[in-house]
Amino acid sequence: MIIGLVLLVSVLALLVAVALARWVLKMDNGTPEMRVISDAIQEGAEAFLKRQYRTIALLSVVVGLIIFLIYQLVRAPSPNDPNQVSRLWLALATTASFFFGAICSGIAGYVGMFVSIRSNIRAASAARSSLNRALQAALRGGAVSGLFVVAMSLLGVGGLYFLVHTFTLIPITKIPLIIVGYGFGASFVALFAQLGGGIYTKAADVGADLVGKVEAGIPEDDPRNPAVIADLVGDNVGDCAGRGADLFESTAAENIGAMILGSTLALRVQAATATSATFVVGVMLFPLVVRAFGLIASIIGIVVVKARENEDPMQALNRGYWLTAVLAAIGFVGGTYWLLQFPGNPDAWWHFALAGVIGIATSVAFVYITQYYTEYRYRPVKTIAAASVTGPATNIISGFAVALECTAMPAFVIGLAIISSYHLGSSAVPGGGLFGTAVATMGMLGTAAYILAMDTFGPITDNAGGIIEMSKQPEEIRRKTDRLDAVGNTTKALTKGYAVGSAALAAFLLFSAYMDEIGYYTNTSFAVVDIAKPEIFVAALLGAMLIFWFSSLAINAVQKAAVSVIKEVRRQFSEDAGILAGTSRPNYARCVDIVTVGALKEMVAPGLLVVGMPIAVGLIFRLMGLGAEAVAAFLMVGTITGILVALMLNNGGGAWDNAKKFIEAGEYGGKGSFAHKAGVVGDTVGDPFKDTAGPSLHVVIKLLSTVTLVLAPLFI
Amino acid sequence: MIIGLVLLVSVLALLVAVALARWVLKMDNGTPEMRVISDAIQEGAEAFLKRQYRTIALLSVVVGLIIFLIYQLVRAPSPNDPNQVSRLWLALATTASFFFGAICSGIAGYVGMFVSIRSNIRAASAARSSLNRALQAALRGGAVSGLFVVAMSLLGVGGLYFLVHTFTLIPITKIPLIIVGYGFGASFVALFAQLGGGIYTKAADVGADLVGKVEAGIPEDDPRNPAVIADLVGDNVGDCAGRGADLFESTAAENIGAMILGSTLALRVQAATATSATFVVGVMLFPLVVRAFGLIASIIGIVVVKARENEDPMQALNRGYWLTAVLAAIGFVGGTYWLLQFPGNPDAWWHFALAGVIGIATSVAFVYITQYYTEYRYRPVKTIAAASVTGPATNIISGFAVALECTAMPAFVIGLAIISSYHLGSSAVPGGGLFGTAVATMGMLGTAAYILAMDTFGPITDNAGGIIEMSKQPEEIRRKTDRLDAVGNTTKALTKGYAVGSAALAAFLLFSAYMDEIGYYTNTSFAVVDIAKPEIFVAALLGAMLIFWFSSLAINAVQKAAVSVIKEVRRQFSEDAGILAGTSRPNYARCVDIVTVGALKEMVAPGLLVVGMPIAVGLIFRLMGLGAEAVAAFLMVGTITGILVALMLNNGGGAWDNAKKFIEAGEYGGKGSFAHKAGVVGDTVGDPFKDTAGPSLHVVIKLLSTVTLVLAPLFI
Repeated sequence: MIIGLVLLVSVLALLVAVALARWVLKMDNGTPEMRVISDAIQEGAEAFLKRQYRTIALLSVVVGLIIFLIYQLVRAPSPNDPNQVSRLWLALATTASFFFGAICSGIAGYVGMFVSIRSNIRAASAARSSLNRALQAALRGGAVSGLFVVAMSLLGVGGLYFLVHTFTLIPITKIPLIIVGYGFGASFVALFAQLGGGIYTKAADVGADLVGKVEAGIPEDDPRNPAVIADLVGDNVGDCAGRGADLFESTAAENIGAMILGSTLALRVQAATATSATFVVGVMLFPLVVRAFGLIASIIGIVVVKARENEDPMQALNRGYWLTAVLAAIGFVGGTYWLLQFPGNPDAWWHFALAGVIGIATSVAFVYITQYYTEYRYRPVKTIAAASVTGPATNIISGFAVALECTAMPAFVIGLAIISSYHLGSSAVPGGGLFGTAVATMGMLGTAAYILAMDTFGPITDNAGGIIEMSKQPEEIRRKTDRLDAVGNTTKALTKGYAVGSAALAAFLLFSAYMDEIGYYTNTSFAVVDIAKPEIFVAALLGAMLIFWFSSLAINAVQKAAVSVIKEVRRQFSEDAGILAGTSRPNYARCVDIVTVGALKEMVAPGLLVVGMPIAVGLIFRLMGLGAEAVAAFLMVGTITGILVALMLNNGGGAWDNAKKFIEAGEYGGKGSFAHKAGVVGDTVGDPFKDTAGPSLHVVIKLLSTVTLVLAPLFI
Repeated sequence: MIIGLVLLVSVLALLVAVALARWVLKMDNGTPEMRVISDAIQEGAEAFLKRQYRTIALLSVVVGLIIFLIYQLVRAPSPNDPNQVSRLWLALATTASFFFGAICSGIAGYVGMFVSIRSNIRAASAARSSLNRALQAALRGGAVSGLFVVAMSLLGVGGLYFLVHTFTLIPITKIPLIIVGYGFGASFVALFAQLGGGIYTKAADVGADLVGKVEAGIPEDDPRNPAVIADLVGDNVGDCAGRGADLFESTAAENIGAMILGSTLALRVQAATATSATFVVGVMLFPLVVRAFGLIASIIGIVVVKARENEDPMQALNRGYWLTAVLAAIGFVGGTYWLLQFPGNPDAWWHFALAGVIGIATSVAFVYITQYYTEYRYRPVKTIAAASVTGPATNIISGFAVALECTAMPAFVIGLAIISSYHLGSSAVPGGGLFGTAVATMGMLGTAAYILAMDTFGPITDNAGGIIEMSKQPEEIRRKTDRLDAVGNTTKALTKGYAVGSAALAAFLLFSAYMDEIGYYTNTSFAVVDIAKPEIFVAALLGAMLIFWFSSLAINAVQKAAVSVIKEVRRQFSEDAGILAGTSRPNYARCVDIVTVGALKEMVAPGLLVVGMPIAVGLIFRLMGLGAEAVAAFLMVGTITGILVALMLNNGGGAWDNAKKFIEAGEYGGKGSFAHKAGVVGDTVGDPFKDTAGPSLHVVIKLLSTVTLVLAPLFI
């Protein structure tokens, strides 16, 4: 019955998403000039996605095969394995969940993008009559992505659970361990989607800017720039498809991890108090139920958003967010009251409800900290702008100092959230500490669908602005889309803060799931990760180093792909003087094609590094008899470093971006001044930080956990 | 007898240093025009050091008082405390060692600087007749600093040991724990010396360049620039006094830490095999003995260096280095054979000898890796130079990618060194693993005096070049000092690699000493630091974050101090047009004064953060009953992050610097080209990275260990 509710809500959410998509697609799709541009974006984005998926599919088949072989040939049977099924069956089930996770993530990403690249022109067209209509088009278009991502992830985990439960005799509490492959499949796709999309968007952006703005002196989004369409495509594949895959895997991995912890806890309580099996199932499915409630809250939040023509559109979005957060919190408290009634422990449920509220509060704190470090109303960005007066060098130094500094407050917040939710859990039920942190993570992810809708709002409004600009619409309409675009920049930055915060909070839950799993295989308790052992310390050092190395590769990838764009744009300008004169049409498709090839080629090396290194560490340290513990330390310290470096890159990039905007708003001489030139340098430096390496690190953090979860049998 | 040998060698080394100083000071001190400049540098450097020492003395008195109060009032007596002395005596002894460490570090720094700022003009004057004479003047002048630092550190630890042994009845194996204050005193001074000096040198450099080179268009080291003397002073206070204090504390802290580990091991062996007390003393004093041998090796290496007039001066220095390394290795093997004869275990000594060789090999590996990432013969710097063609933004992005990447190889090397030396130690003596890593660290630090002589060679030759330039000597002489200056840049970069490598290797030793000490106080075994506990994980996260936060403060400090210089230089230019015309003399002293005040003011906040945060973490987590373990995790993960961030900042900065030099050598359009302008931006960005934040992090890593060693009683 509980699982039925979960599946019902997910299907319902998908239906709402389809309805929203139809609502948006029925809107007016603009003038023919606008359609020319929008069609080019659509074509480019779909071509990229198609090729990207092909590459990912190929890599997935290889990885899937490896998983199968490991489970079939290497993995030693554990006394805890369900004796209702064979070894082959387990190997097949794990591999199948991996593929299923990969496919679901792909579908969610594709559908989200499909609607997003069709919403841009509708938002642009609506802007010609009403700001509210444009806002609604962009938000609802983005909501399709948000709802699909969260609902597909829920449907996948819930559906797998339902299938295994219905068609096998495996005890339900062992099911989560069988479907861990789903989370790894989702992470695997997410890594390449975010990395490839991130490389694409910034290579196109940097390439377009360096030749267009700097060398040829034409404005941004100018139709004479051959890379302008590639740049607009990039916003969709990076922010929409990439971030969607990121949060898809957050929710999927976290759902499974929380189910593992929940079932362990509930079984222990059951053994001690001889309570009913319904209680156990309830605790285990609790994560899915509150996720379902969160979906409902998000849907309500999305549909009520409505902006007055003259108000700041951000306020309308904020009203929707707060409504969603409050509804999600109510649903959360209800869920704990319903399912977390621990026998003989009437106070337990509200302890967990409080842990959930801590999670929600953490997400709010991250949103505000991100704003403080990236908006030009506050000190950090102002410092960078002031430093631009003495040139690009001081702009960079000052921005880098801000980037380093911005890690401090989030670290305190995460620390507080982990410790307090752990203590709430412990005080609720003996041994319930880890489940407490899991519940906090669920609270944080409760509003994921709404957050993601706001995120995809970003590329839609950005594209809408581009379409208005390129089709030479009146200045007054451009001003409207500019307002929406500015809001989109903010929501994109906030989503990154949210994503890194949830990755940080989820990390602790995923470590614990990994350690539970090792204990399951070895049939002993594995609870200590002792970095005072030299081998474990070295593994921790390597985990931290991986983050630096990966970031280097990701940033370099942008640089390399950008160079190919720069060459192509220069070639087009020099071969046809008519392009700059405005008499011939540049070859947009060729630029799109070049970035696509470049991004897909460059994403492979960093991607394989992240998948391969934890495996290599596990296998090498296994020779010293410390494989499982070394991997745990690698994972934990890699996660710590990953959180900090991601914050540094995301917020640093955001701060540089807005320091430039602050100068453009008229400070320190405004546009074209010496300070502005310095600001442009900082903005360009920040681009691959905030849109490629930083967001990819969110995925890396979670991938490290899921890869070790699935491959745990290798390390013992 | 053993301690007598150690004290004898240290006094001998000091006498050699005095003889070298006299040799250098007797050399010709140039023309009156040269002396005017050299006198200004001397005055500025001495004024800075005087004020800096006053600030440090003040801070030290406060910290010393706190240490005394903690030991007298807070620290609970341990059953392991020597019962021959009172609580008050212990408190006084610890406080006194702290002050003694601080004072010895101060003396070593002062004497080194005293000679260095007098060697510059002699090297300049010698360059007028012979390259070899100039080289010898600079190296021997630098050697005074190197020998004083290592010998004073050895004399301090050895002397304290001797005093306590002679005048009390405390069992000798308890002495190291009583004198840990010495290491903390040394670290405390080192932190502020390196931080203050680092801020000074880069604030002056950035300030002088931004107004002089960029705004007024006058060349570097031009006498018309009011900040030029401050810039030359900066090289001395940053590289000579700062790095000297850094390595002073490395050797001091590592000597004491290794003595603690050695005595623990030897006592255990003695208890099991009933061997003689002489054996125990031998193992415990082994670190001091091999350090003494290293001093002798360095002295021989220094005095034999001689360059042919036409050869690359780097080759002459390298010959001296290799001779020192070989002699140190021989001394090392001899020392292990003499003192590490474990009873009934004839093979143990050569296992430890091999561990020492691993340490020496690690230092060589670090030197080569540093060269690879920072010299323009290799790929990384070439990539940055190539990226400069598209402007400052791509130069920065590319440099940042190199900075992130360069952490990978050192992490592997450190990992290999720790694990292999640990295994050598374990296979030599049961439980001897940690002593194995300690022995490797000793091996690495064996050539410290020679390395430091090469490092101080840097500012001396840099100053010599400045004096030649400013006193308008013939072009041909300038070419000679330029060659020496280029070598000085290389040796400075190598020393930083060496310093971070030795800090990394020493870290493991210092953690273990801390854990030993906690075990000593609580009279239980404290061996596990379990980051799977949420509280410990959070402490680890905070340790990593501290590194980012500290780096931000250090970089910002440079920026702020530089702004005051910029304003002053602009003021002088605008108030007296004669300065730029070359008819009036700028007010050098005023610039020196402003940087001094600025640097000293800005060093306080980051310094106190690093001292205060481990204490705060220990006290807060103590409330949860996990103070000691949380501090250990804080320390370990802080160290991991510190190593990586220091590598990133040092090598990134070095690579940017040399990418600019590569362009200046004629690539991509050479001096004045668009690419060169981009290169200058990168170089300026790298300045506070490589000369302020990076080197300060070496000290931070070690300070975290020594502060926790001394304040351990607070956390339990």
